[in-house]
Amino acid sequence: MTQIKATNITRHEGHVTREAREKLLKQKGALIWFTGLSGSGKSTIAFTLEHVLVERGHLSYCLDGDNIRFGLNKNLGFSAADRTENIRRIAEVGKLFVDAGIVTCTSFISPYRADRDNARQVIGPDCFIEVYMNTPIEVCETRDPKGLYKKARAGELKGFTGVDDPYEAPLKPELTIDATSISPQEATLTVIGLLEKRGFLTGL
Amino acid sequence: MTQIKATNITRHEGHVTREAREKLLKQKGALIWFTGLSGSGKSTIAFTLEHVLVERGHLSYCLDGDNIRFGLNKNLGFSAADRTENIRRIAEVGKLFVDAGIVTCTSFISPYRADRDNARQVIGPDCFIEVYMNTPIEVCETRDPKGLYKKARAGELKGFTGVDDPYEAPLKPELTIDATSISPQEATLTVIGLLEKRGFLTGL
Repeated sequence: MTQIKATNITRHEGHVTREAREKLLKQKGALIWFTGLSGSGKSTIAFTLEHVLVERGHLSYCLDGDNIRFGLNKNLGFSAADRTENIRRIAEVGKLFVDAGIVTCTSFISPYRADRDNARQVIGPDCFIEVYMNTPIEVCETRDPKGLYKKARAGELKGFTGVDDPYEAPLKPELTIDATSISPQEATLTVIGLLEKRGFLTGL
Repeated sequence: MTQIKATNITRHEGHVTREAREKLLKQKGALIWFTGLSGSGKSTIAFTLEHVLVERGHLSYCLDGDNIRFGLNKNLGFSAADRTENIRRIAEVGKLFVDAGIVTCTSFISPYRADRDNARQVIGPDCFIEVYMNTPIEVCETRDPKGLYKKARAGELKGFTGVDDPYEAPLKPELTIDATSISPQEATLTVIGLLEKRGFLTGL
């Protein structure tokens, strides 16, 4: 009886292909990598994008400090070496999510160019979309949603990006957004427009 | 014009819920954790399960040595500390996959009970299914798909689970499978039966 049922199944020794999952999901795996200073608006756009995509029937997932820094990367600090390992792990997890067929967003300051370029290579340039949040630091500092600039200026927080640790702007990002000239909703539509244009939101 | 389009979008400051993604996918996130000796049949069942689920329209993804050891965990070796960190990271990635709504399989020897118990806690006991591959070591060693037992017996490979490193069997696994008494196809159907019974393959 069990044998009869089992004859409908083929034994497998390898992974399901990315294409098979993309066909199932009617979309293509992509990584939208938001980079920019604290307070530049990365997370608001990433979250808004995630919500709009899911509402439209697309599987989307955001990796950010909430689900990475307190989980996978909780054994890392903020030294240059730990920042690099932080971004390396995020890139590798992003690669798995893209392989699963998911339209994935990452929202991290990711200040070092070499780390982001490594992420692009790991994930694959064809499905890596770097979004540079080019909001002026004066605006980010005025917003200061977590009070971190204030602490950094007071010397209570060391190695803070934009204050006493460098931010290396992308040289060739797929998109540049200045949150002072465009609303998060408009920015989200811009990203979706790019995803549509490049064919990520249609099946194989 | 842009503003008119954008008014249909709500700005968000937080993640899409797991429930929203589960509704979209018409399934519930789960982690099927295969544990057992090298050659016990973990990967064959995990891969067969992944294929059957995707063929039936369910998003499934396998984490295994191929996509983890050469990516996220390529900076880890096989010392006891590194094995623990290996499984910790896999558990944290598994948690993200389950949160994305995916029926996730992991296929790793994962020899230490404490590490697997930690994975169960990280992922959540309600959606963690431990499958113990209880294939006798004599059989695993006869199969020896990668020639590793031979090397370990010859002393060319140190710290090999079952030879000179311990395997701590699960005390209360959700399923126990002996690959000598059941085919991979039959074992796969057994796992699917459990997933159906526990409601993971139906939407919210």
